[in-house]
Amino acid sequence: MCEMTESERREYESLREIPLESTLIRHGRILDMRLDMVRVPNGNVAGRELVRHLGAVCVVPLTDDGQVILERQYRYVIDSVITEIPAGKLDAADEEPLEAAKRELREETGFHAAEWISLGDFFPAAAYSDEHIRLFLARGLTPGERDLDADELINVFTLPLEDAVAAVMRGEYPDAKTQMGILKAAEYLRRENT
Amino acid sequence: MCEMTESERREYESLREIPLESTLIRHGRILDMRLDMVRVPNGNVAGRELVRHLGAVCVVPLTDDGQVILERQYRYVIDSVITEIPAGKLDAADEEPLEAAKRELREETGFHAAEWISLGDFFPAAAYSDEHIRLFLARGLTPGERDLDADELINVFTLPLEDAVAAVMRGEYPDAKTQMGILKAAEYLRRENT
Repeated sequence: MCEMTESERREYESLREIPLESTLIRHGRILDMRLDMVRVPNGNVAGRELVRHLGAVCVVPLTDDGQVILERQYRYVIDSVITEIPAGKLDAADEEPLEAAKRELREETGFHAAEWISLGDFFPAAAYSDEHIRLFLARGLTPGERDLDADELINVFTLPLEDAVAAVMRGEYPDAKTQMGILKAAEYLRRENT
Repeated sequence: MCEMTESERREYESLREIPLESTLIRHGRILDMRLDMVRVPNGNVAGRELVRHLGAVCVVPLTDDGQVILERQYRYVIDSVITEIPAGKLDAADEEPLEAAKRELREETGFHAAEWISLGDFFPAAAYSDEHIRLFLARGLTPGERDLDADELINVFTLPLEDAVAAVMRGEYPDAKTQMGILKAAEYLRRENT
């Protein structure tokens, strides 16, 4: 909130909720679950159920011949194996996102990248989670050794970026960051080439 | 998981985690927070922190002259006013997503739409939340009365879809479903017009 215009500042002051009390429901390994009581603009007190998360990064790795590198990974919470772009949590809240992105790409796929381009950031679930994800496009790829955690089971495959865009539009990739990463990378390349 | 191919079935069986025990940490108004113990494929037991959510819908409302209708809304968990497409939770797990989308569009913006097109679905945070969001494109808009909840404070504005795409690429809309909705709507229209 450090670059608000004067009208954004007024909007923020008129809409913001004041924290009154924050109760830690559970301190977890990847999530803290909290219940905050807040004063809303009309003066009432309301509860806000929320999740605190360290933050994460994700990467669209693009080969020189326009193939994107994707992963198949099991997700317990939806009991499904889904297709995702390489991604991972920050090791610490102050870890440099670009360093985390380089680490996750190398660990999960083995690839190093010569060129890293920011494709922005996003909050996947701003209604209840402060998870903040930074997205990168990685080009100039060199293969190497993967380095997975013992309980990380990830199958890697590649396909042309335009086929990945078509798969997103057909609804084949239910993971939000993956849909977004593929569409943003395609839009970035379109703008780069015009 | 009802339409798996034989190879997807084998992949699922080789990667899936078996729930052993599920503990309700907190039953909330919009979220249930749980801690599940699972058996992972190598036989070890691991904990899975997770959030159960009813599900949600979001809508890209597009006027006949190509303007998208957007909202400014305060989000406590990130203490910011952000730009979003109209969206909301399902009223019940079995609510028809299209009906929920029509309701949210009407309540938050006043608009009715003559044409509803599915732009697919996604899991915003498949690592820890089962929230499932359905995305729609709404066209043939007719203005009407808004119907906000007493504590819903939403400012509505419009801008050309191509300007919204540019704003997404400049990083101005940190909300994931909003970035995705705008990029998917633009890709849908590109495919419709070729």
